[in-house]
Amino acid sequence: MIEEALKIRAKLVDEAIPKFLPITPPDEMYYAMRHLLDAGGKRLRPSALLLSAEAVGGKPENVMPAAVAIELVHNFTLVHDDIMDEADLRRGLTTVHKKWGVPKAIIAGDALYSKAFEILSCTRSEPARLVESLELMSKTCTDICEGQWMDMNFATRKDVKEEEYMRMVEKKTAVLFAASMKMGATLSGANNDIARALWDFGRMTGIGFQIYDDVIDLITPEEILGKAQGGDIIEGKRTLIVIHALSKGTTIDALGKSNATRSEVSAALTTLKESGSIDYAMNKAVGFVDEGKAALKTLPDSEAKTILIGLADYMIARKY
Amino acid sequence: MIEEALKIRAKLVDEAIPKFLPITPPDEMYYAMRHLLDAGGKRLRPSALLLSAEAVGGKPENVMPAAVAIELVHNFTLVHDDIMDEADLRRGLTTVHKKWGVPKAIIAGDALYSKAFEILSCTRSEPARLVESLELMSKTCTDICEGQWMDMNFATRKDVKEEEYMRMVEKKTAVLFAASMKMGATLSGANNDIARALWDFGRMTGIGFQIYDDVIDLITPEEILGKAQGGDIIEGKRTLIVIHALSKGTTIDALGKSNATRSEVSAALTTLKESGSIDYAMNKAVGFVDEGKAALKTLPDSEAKTILIGLADYMIARKY
Repeated sequence: MIEEALKIRAKLVDEAIPKFLPITPPDEMYYAMRHLLDAGGKRLRPSALLLSAEAVGGKPENVMPAAVAIELVHNFTLVHDDIMDEADLRRGLTTVHKKWGVPKAIIAGDALYSKAFEILSCTRSEPARLVESLELMSKTCTDICEGQWMDMNFATRKDVKEEEYMRMVEKKTAVLFAASMKMGATLSGANNDIARALWDFGRMTGIGFQIYDDVIDLITPEEILGKAQGGDIIEGKRTLIVIHALSKGTTIDALGKSNATRSEVSAALTTLKESGSIDYAMNKAVGFVDEGKAALKTLPDSEAKTILIGLADYMIARKY
Repeated sequence: MIEEALKIRAKLVDEAIPKFLPITPPDEMYYAMRHLLDAGGKRLRPSALLLSAEAVGGKPENVMPAAVAIELVHNFTLVHDDIMDEADLRRGLTTVHKKWGVPKAIIAGDALYSKAFEILSCTRSEPARLVESLELMSKTCTDICEGQWMDMNFATRKDVKEEEYMRMVEKKTAVLFAASMKMGATLSGANNDIARALWDFGRMTGIGFQIYDDVIDLITPEEILGKAQGGDIIEGKRTLIVIHALSKGTTIDALGKSNATRSEVSAALTTLKESGSIDYAMNKAVGFVDEGKAALKTLPDSEAKTILIGLADYMIARKY
């Protein structure tokens, strides 16, 4: 039932994207912008925004521009991140910079960014609520940049602490979920307390989502993941799993070894299982999602609230 | 008198930048964002915005966040453009990607972009006027991306027409001047006709500015320009000068020759002088600036209006 409800929202977002971001001259730039968007994806963030609007009594169709804007912001970060990570594959597709080259991928990302603000500014809502949402989205984008910067610095350090990782994950991933929830509520006329509760839900479940995402990167085969298994290990990323293992004095040979073989990555996986680091991260992810669900207590019961709780559970149960 | 008046506005912008964009954690990211901003620059766009506010009876201090936002957008484009052009120098300084590497320069640019929207959204104005300005700034950023994309495509073509060049220049350069003027007016309570006249002024003088900028790139020595003379020739850029010369059947040997020597660039300069292409571009630039000044006729006379006319003249008289 939850999966079906999420699919319905994802389909609405799928249909809205080409309406708000049609192919116009210079056509090739818009094809580059739409490359990852058209590949599908789970649309978790825009679906969360639509559900947040519904949960406060708003109409999802009224906040559709905001939902599309959030998906564009997410995709902008993917396009630029793939350049930085020199990634070849995303969602099973060639990455934008592999297909169009780095300079054009930089522009395509920048244009997704500006289109997101342009589309958001067309949402029909009270101007003061719209300004608040535009400000929130810009602050969120700054947070994402700060989180990405911190993440890059972590890769060259051996002594990253769990608190630092948590701050990074909050900025890099969780605030966009939090902003999606808050915008859906604010633009639909919700009061501050309710908007704040939905923000907390997005923030907590977003942290859980990212911790679980790092687990998935490690344990999911390429056929399902759409990109190389254990990519984070090869890149030397300081995920919660790695931080936990290193703090226990565990040695991970493949960490940051760009030419690591499949069997070396597989050995790292075994090591991280044996050190209890994967279980540690999984438990943390569950804990954050539970805290997020608890934040929804102040909301009146509704179908949308039930689906949001289901979405939170899905965040740490999905396979990719 | 005009130069002094522009200096006063530039100084106000200089002082406002560190207030609106202080160094906060992660410090290094904010240093990268401030790298080019702190190197000075002429602050033409934010000064134009302040003058536009004054010309409609507004207080410049009220629109200072918008002025800083425009300067941040301009600097964001410089940081990303330098990556795409693989430029080593800007304003006599090492470029951001040469100092911090490409991945961090991409993030620093992205963060300047989001900070621009964040700062703009803090301007004290009627919410509806603020939404209009946020929407205008986002549309302008999309235009800049489209213009930059077109410009990159031109470099691989031999048959770029003058009309195409004009459309590219309008998007890549002129709309940011136009948006600066319009935002200064709109945020200060101006009516649509006046805001439109100021938009036209910015658009026309902005086109003149870019045409003249291409002339400067060609004729100004590195000591004054702060970057290599004739860089556009070496990069193969289709400037109005080059388009005019090619349309006359003139051969420019150094065009797009990345290893061209100083004397080859110098020979190209002589060729472009003899073909009348530099004079042609200069005359066009003057024509656009004159049209821009004419658009100001609907505005009541004021000190700010006089300075704006002086600014328009300066745009095609500056040495760098």
